[in-house]
Amino acid sequence: MAEPVSKTLALSGGVGGAKLCLGLASELAGPDLDILVNTGDDFEHLGLPIWPDIDTLLYTLSGRANQVQGWGIEGETWNFMEALETLGGETWFRLGDRDLATHTWRSQALREGRHASDIVASLASTMGIEAAVYPMSDDPVRTQVHSDEGDLPFQHYFVRRQCEPEVTGFSFEGITSARPNQTVLRTLQQGGYRRVVICPSNPYVSIDPILQVPGVWTALRDAVAPVIVVSPIVAGLAIKGPAAKMMSELAVPVTALGVAEHYQRRYPGLVDYFVIDESDATLAPEIEALGIRVEIAPTIMKDLQHKMTLARHCLALEAM
Amino acid sequence: MAEPVSKTLALSGGVGGAKLCLGLASELAGPDLDILVNTGDDFEHLGLPIWPDIDTLLYTLSGRANQVQGWGIEGETWNFMEALETLGGETWFRLGDRDLATHTWRSQALREGRHASDIVASLASTMGIEAAVYPMSDDPVRTQVHSDEGDLPFQHYFVRRQCEPEVTGFSFEGITSARPNQTVLRTLQQGGYRRVVICPSNPYVSIDPILQVPGVWTALRDAVAPVIVVSPIVAGLAIKGPAAKMMSELAVPVTALGVAEHYQRRYPGLVDYFVIDESDATLAPEIEALGIRVEIAPTIMKDLQHKMTLARHCLALEAM
Repeated sequence: MAEPVSKTLALSGGVGGAKLCLGLASELAGPDLDILVNTGDDFEHLGLPIWPDIDTLLYTLSGRANQVQGWGIEGETWNFMEALETLGGETWFRLGDRDLATHTWRSQALREGRHASDIVASLASTMGIEAAVYPMSDDPVRTQVHSDEGDLPFQHYFVRRQCEPEVTGFSFEGITSARPNQTVLRTLQQGGYRRVVICPSNPYVSIDPILQVPGVWTALRDAVAPVIVVSPIVAGLAIKGPAAKMMSELAVPVTALGVAEHYQRRYPGLVDYFVIDESDATLAPEIEALGIRVEIAPTIMKDLQHKMTLARHCLALEAM
Repeated sequence: MAEPVSKTLALSGGVGGAKLCLGLASELAGPDLDILVNTGDDFEHLGLPIWPDIDTLLYTLSGRANQVQGWGIEGETWNFMEALETLGGETWFRLGDRDLATHTWRSQALREGRHASDIVASLASTMGIEAAVYPMSDDPVRTQVHSDEGDLPFQHYFVRRQCEPEVTGFSFEGITSARPNQTVLRTLQQGGYRRVVICPSNPYVSIDPILQVPGVWTALRDAVAPVIVVSPIVAGLAIKGPAAKMMSELAVPVTALGVAEHYQRRYPGLVDYFVIDESDATLAPEIEALGIRVEIAPTIMKDLQHKMTLARHCLALEAM
């Protein structure tokens, strides 16, 4: 008799997604959680490879994340940044002293010719993370934000310009030739996942890049495993980041329904379950009218208990 | 009538040389001191350009140097290094959080295509240094230490192996095609220096590379300006670093005389004055027998007063 399938695949961007991933990691045995992470936010800065979503995942899952700040490392120090400022260096993207070690270590690994997935696996292992963390692709993909100020590389829009420009759309440089992570794709194609959880990350700049790596979204659609989306919009607000502002600028309703419509229009037949917050319960009929089952749950994750509760809600959903 | 020549040129390696340079800088007006610095110790580490002698000069002249440790920055922190260690990165060469900003800033400047001399000038200016600090060449020169363990890049010998291997000689990769600093060479050729001070730096690995950049030592020899060497060996000991150990391994007498003989044999006619410590006064006749005038002075520089006193001794020496 074949072993029962117990693995969960999570798709995640940075902070919001990492919260649910921590909940999932707390509920599942290490080998039962694979996480496929957006790399469209990656960029080169001061000569170093900065991979913000990957690092947020690693720092969160290993208990290193700064809880108050929402990014970076707990107990971080800023002496490098301070010294760089006195030299007139670029300081708009804040690199902490400890965080810098991750980028420097990675930079050397890349120079040695190692692949992104191999590098992430080493970092995760060194940090004692049991879940498998995979970059969506070993090939570079770079999110460009189209805006009223022209095309901006993602971190320039997000950090340097503090999301102020009005967005008109997005593109992902390099995506048409990016190869998906082979381990995840193979596991998907072999029916090795019991469910797929799309974390409450930004649909446009965190999840779309992952889904648009050639072969990914269709493999997810064709798998028996149900695809469960957790809405990043609650009561018309983005819990974290610029999702609500982007939706508004794109003239999309800033609601969980707007998110569901985005996924259903762009990836027809992909989503099986849509998890919305209790405060959005009245949206359920309209989302179900799209052909998506709705699960109502407390989706705001203020502490580990909330993360675990939401994870349990997702893990209770089965293939129909 | 021509303006009187008032500029002093100092040749320097790292710590020992920087001490006398600080003394000279305290005695001279900013525009009256040029410093030509060894770059043979430079290397690439963790993807960053590390220029130890240049940085020691900059940190010393700008008052940033760590007085107790003898290298690096006062009040330095080590969180980057600590984090890198937990990731299994290379930690044999200690890079402090603040020091890292210098290397990172420089790395970016090099990527922008800027020359070493331009980069050093910017750093010196940002740090408020009035003396002109010049790398001996804009072209890379890399000191190799020949030893009983084979050929070792300088920092591997010096830091990683703590000077333990027994040396048999030295070579300077790239030196035959290295172009000397043009500003210093032109000033020399135009008679723009009143004196040249060779600081009490290691003759083999700090001063030899500078002198052996094509055109440098002959221009120094041919200039009217007297060349004054301050002995790095006092009472048979090197004040700082492995000079004494090297001389002993090379079967050279570990005395100020041994240093004088090294310069006279390798660069005949270069040295006009040799400054030895009071404790070595008995060596004066033998050094003078080489055709070099001897000046006796207190050469151990424990504090700024000692540095300034030794500087004044050097500055009092005139062309014969």
